[in-house]
Formats: sequence, C-alpha cells, structure tokens
Amino acid sequence: MPTAPRLDLTASSLEITRQLCDIPSVSGDEAGLADAIEAALTGARHLEIIRDGDAIVARTNLGRAKRVVIAGHIDTVPINENVPSRDETIDGVDYLWGRGTVDMKAGVAVQVKLALELTAPAVDVTWIWYDHEEVSAALNGLGRLASNRPVLLAGDFAILGEPSNSIIEGGCNGNLRVEVRTFGTRAHSARAWVGHNAIHDLAPVLDTLASYVPREVEVDGLVYREGLNAVGISGGVAGNVIPDEAMVHVNYRFAPSRSGDEAIAHLREVFAGFDLTVVDLAEGARPGLDAALARQFVEAVGGEPKPKYGWTDVARFSALGVPAVNYGPGDPVKAHADDERVAVDQIAACERGLRSWLSGADA
Amino acid sequence: MPTAPRLDLTASSLEITRQLCDIPSVSGDEAGLADAIEAALTGARHLEIIRDGDAIVARTNLGRAKRVVIAGHIDTVPINENVPSRDETIDGVDYLWGRGTVDMKAGVAVQVKLALELTAPAVDVTWIWYDHEEVSAALNGLGRLASNRPVLLAGDFAILGEPSNSIIEGGCNGNLRVEVRTFGTRAHSARAWVGHNAIHDLAPVLDTLASYVPREVEVDGLVYREGLNAVGISGGVAGNVIPDEAMVHVNYRFAPSRSGDEAIAHLREVFAGFDLTVVDLAEGARPGLDAALARQFVEAVGGEPKPKYGWTDVARFSALGVPAVNYGPGDPVKAHADDERVAVDQIAACERGLRSWLSGADA
Repeated sequence: MPTAPRLDLTASSLEITRQLCDIPSVSGDEAGLADAIEAALTGARHLEIIRDGDAIVARTNLGRAKRVVIAGHIDTVPINENVPSRDETIDGVDYLWGRGTVDMKAGVAVQVKLALELTAPAVDVTWIWYDHEEVSAALNGLGRLASNRPVLLAGDFAILGEPSNSIIEGGCNGNLRVEVRTFGTRAHSARAWVGHNAIHDLAPVLDTLASYVPREVEVDGLVYREGLNAVGISGGVAGNVIPDEAMVHVNYRFAPSRSGDEAIAHLREVFAGFDLTVVDLAEGARPGLDAALARQFVEAVGGEPKPKYGWTDVARFSALGVPAVNYGPGDPVKAHADDERVAVDQIAACERGLRSWLSGADA
Repeated sequence: MPTAPRLDLTASSLEITRQLCDIPSVSGDEAGLADAIEAALTGARHLEIIRDGDAIVARTNLGRAKRVVIAGHIDTVPINENVPSRDETIDGVDYLWGRGTVDMKAGVAVQVKLALELTAPAVDVTWIWYDHEEVSAALNGLGRLASNRPVLLAGDFAILGEPSNSIIEGGCNGNLRVEVRTFGTRAHSARAWVGHNAIHDLAPVLDTLASYVPREVEVDGLVYREGLNAVGISGGVAGNVIPDEAMVHVNYRFAPSRSGDEAIAHLREVFAGFDLTVVDLAEGARPGLDAALARQFVEAVGGEPKPKYGWTDVARFSALGVPAVNYGPGDPVKAHADDERVAVDQIAACERGLRSWLSGADA
C-alpha cells in the first residue's frame, strides 16, 4: 500500500493550499484527499469528526447560541498539465498557479486551518468538506448529506467557500433549461411544398430571444441580473430532406425572488404556442444578508457584498431555510481555466475575514 | 466459384425486371449484375459492347444520321428485407414489389430488352448501364465515363430511365447547398452580457427563409418550381455557455434557366452580411424539349411532359451539350422506400413508348 499523503495544518494557509492542490482529487477520486483531511483533524479535542463517503464533517459542540455551517468541495475538474502547483508572479502580483487553486482548494485550506486552530469560536461551527461538486448534481456530496443526514447542515447561517475574490457574494440566481420544439412534415427538398419546414418555424423563437430584455431585480439589497439565452440549436435530417423537427435549447437565469415554478410559467408565456420541455431546474437562493449573523459577517469582512450570478451550492442551504453566502479566495473567471491561479493576498484576506468573524461573532 | 447469374432477355420486361431485382446490386456491389448484362448481350451482332469498371456500354453503329443515348444505373440503395421481389396487388393495381423495382431496374429491364431486340433502330443508339449512382457523386459511373471517355456519351439526345411514372420529365432543377454562419463571443451563461450569442444572430436568417417566396420559372415550355430551405441548423457548446458560432445549412433548388454561379450570387444577395460557404453545387439541366428528336419522342410516348424537380444524371448530358430527359417506369415517391414497388402497367407503357419511338424516329 502506498503511504497516504499527509497534511501539515500548522503551515500557512498558502502552504496548505499548495499541499491540497498537489494531492489530485478530480471528481470521483477524492478518497486520498478526504483521508488526509480526516487524518489531520482526528485527535482535535474540540471537533467531532463524521465521515460520509468522501465527505468529512467536523463540528464543535460548545453549546453556543448560534451555529454556522462553513463548507467547501474538495474535488476539481480534470487536470490539464496543471498539477503540481507552482508560484507565479504577474505584473507584480503573486499567485499560486494550478488546478484547484481557485476552485476551490484555497478556500478549503483556509477552512481546515481555522477548523483546527479555532478551538473556542464565538459560535458553534459545522465544517463540511465534500465530494463530487464538479459533476452531475445527482452525485453532489453536499446534496447527499442534505438528503441522508440533513441535521448535519442545520445552522443559523452558512458560508460556502466558492471563489468570490474574498468578497461576500450573496445568494445566487436560479437556473432553468428548457427545450423549445417545432414540428413539421418531412419531404424531399426537391419538392419542399409537399412538406413543412420545422426549422423555419423556429424564426419567431429566435426573434423572441434576440429581442428579450432581461430584468435586473433587487433582492435583499443586492441587484441580480437575469439572462435568457439559446445555448443550443439543432434540427435537420439530411441535405436533401425538409426537416420535421427542430429545437432550441434555452437557458434562463432568474433572480432568486422568483421561484422555479414562476420561472417556468414565465417561459411558457414568453414561448406561448410552442412545445416546451423543462430539462433542468435549480432554484435560486436569496442572499439572506438581512440576518443578524450575516450583518456581523459583512462588517467583519469589510467590502461591499455583491450578488452571485452563477448557481452554487448555497441554494442547497437556502432550500433548507439556512441563509447562505459565497466567500472564498480566487477569481471565479479563472475557475476551470487551464491557467487557473489564485492571488496569494486573497488567501490571507479570506483567512483574516473568517478568523476575525468567528473569533468575535456574538452569539 | 459460384455460377454467375444468367439473364433471359427473351422474357417480358416485367419478368426481366424480376430477374434484375433478384440479383442484389447495392452500390459498390454491382459486378455480378454487370457481368450478367454483359453476358446476355455479348454475341448480338448489332451491338458493340464496351466495359468500363462495372458500367456496360452497348451501341449500334448503323450509320444513322442521329444518335441517341439511353442510360440507366444498375445499383440500388441498401436492401432492407425487400429482396427477392414479389407480386403484389393493391386496390386492383398489380405491382412488382422490392428493392430496385422503381429505382431503377424496371427502366433498365426495358432498356436491355430493347437493346437486344431492336437490331435496326431508326437512330443509332448508345445504351449505357452504369454503377454507383446512389452514392457520392465522385464515384458515379456515368460521371466516370463522361470524364474518361466522353465520346461514349456523345449524341443528339439522351434519355435517362429514372422513374417518372412513364411520363417524360424534362431537365432538372439545379441544387445548391450553402452554410450560413454567425459568430459571437463565448461566455458563461450566468454572465451572458460578457459574451455575444451567435444563435440569436441567426434570427434574421430564419426570418428570411420563412418569408422567402420561391419562383416558378418557365424553361423551354416547362414550369420549374424552386425551393429555398433550411435542411439543418446547429450551434451550442454546453448548457451553460453562450455559443460563439451557429450555422444554418441551406438548400436552394433552382430552375435550370439559372446557372450555378447565378444561384450562388442570388443566395449571397438573400443572405447579404452573413458568412456564406458553398458546400455543394450541381448545375440544373434545361429540358431540351425544343429539339426535333425530343419533339418526336414526346409525340411517340404521348402525355404531357413535366418538369423534373429532383437533380438527376440528365444534368451530366446537359453539361456535355446533349439535351436529355427522364423517362422510366415507377413513381419517384417510392424510390428508396422500404415498400418500393412499380406498377406493372408502367413497365409495359415504357417499353411501348421507347419501342415505338426507336422504331419510327426519323433521322
């Protein structure tokens, strides 16, 4: 048996990020990293450790009046010659370069370091590091915990360490995908008048998409920008056949003030008269920045909170009634990029923000 | 070695059709049928036989003032449990059912029968039975002869035995396929405003296609109906990506009064401002029914000639300056169909028409 990789959590959060990145953990292959995290925390008297598959839950039970959940996923998208990590300086800014540096091992590094060091936080903390975030929602480790052991996700507030440039990003837009279909009559294209062209019938669908003006909606003080877009289009049988079916794949990103059902109703209205099939729906999440704990967190961290546009697992907390925000080092634009890299300063900033809040947060 | 299949050309044209259909000859596998035809005609003193690959040319050299070319392909599209052929009666009409009955072994049956029987036709005749018509144009046996031995296709008039319900169908529309493309900027669909949606930009292309009114154009007394149709549409990267490219595959069937270059110029005008790539072009063929031989043929056969909408090999003759028409038994709608079947009466009618004309045609 090979020696299991070891983590040294007494190192700086930058060095811990480096250690985490150099243990490959592409979705489905997180066991080694989960083992290392579990081993590094086992024995810490202030933590109860629970393992569920390749998810690790570590929580304090100090009898505080409030409990916060702080979570991050430990898997990455596939490696593309960007492991091991390395230092890089661009325009005078120091970075750690490599797969996972942004999405989201820097965030996890800060979390595991604070989990071990903060033996007496001002609130009880449930730390969760989970598997399978970068693949099908059905495999998501946080989703598995939410459905099998929802009590582990219970809390008054939640923070997801997704990259947000170490600025608080509240909630997230909902995400709906539908297929809009037209139907015609197949015929040889030399005698087109015998048939009916389903692709031509898509013209008003594209007109609607091209002229649609997306809303900007204020929710709990943050302005969410919506979007309605074709993300795919298909149709056609052969070069000499009038097609009898065509389809536009439409993606609607909707503000968290709208429910999934309301989003579907909106698209049925926008595409009235067309065949519409819902293929994917994820509810949005309100930012929840009006909660007392959230306000303290915003104060401790500083900076102006922003809305999160992309869907993240904060919506899973939101669905359980737990207000949740995104807060982690790294620019989301670099997530999944081959030149993924996190600014070293952001790792330190994230650590400072979380440490300050958890040390002083008022129960 | 298996015994080569034998043809009995003293049988009726219906029985010869049956014999031809029961020798499978899917494109690329025509050798056995070509051998059988060659063997059946070898020894006929009035015919010079030339073999080129799996094409058989049989011609009279009687010193007549005029020469006509009468041709048909011997390959079929793939068999789908419809060989051997069988008799079928539907609504009191007798049919021969099976692969190739329509496209176009009934036509070939009439031709090989008359080739052997008409030892002294009123015009010299070049009979051509060729391979690879149902596949890529690059493999087409008639195209191979036209390019390698164009003298074999020389004549004053040509008849192609493609199914036309034993009614003369003159010329054919041209066939042009182009790809109309739009380009945008890729972005995550959660931040669509960072990108530019190429699929949305197809809206005016589909509007143009949906509202286009195709022409009806009289050429040499026949009215050709044009058609402009999307035969394919594609675009999209993933369910969460604003697509940076989209494409409509457009098929233009144009009257033979318009050259290929003119057809391209027309589409460049129709889709002005869009990226346009020509992917396939086949010139049309004028019906040539104003030629003296053609007029005699129309008289001998009877009935009102019609325009041929689909592209056929008559265009290869047209390109060589030989007026050409389609004339053969079978409803083209049943070509390639799994229930392909030819009305028995049409085989006899086609034989009568050709025999009468070839016996009496005036040089």
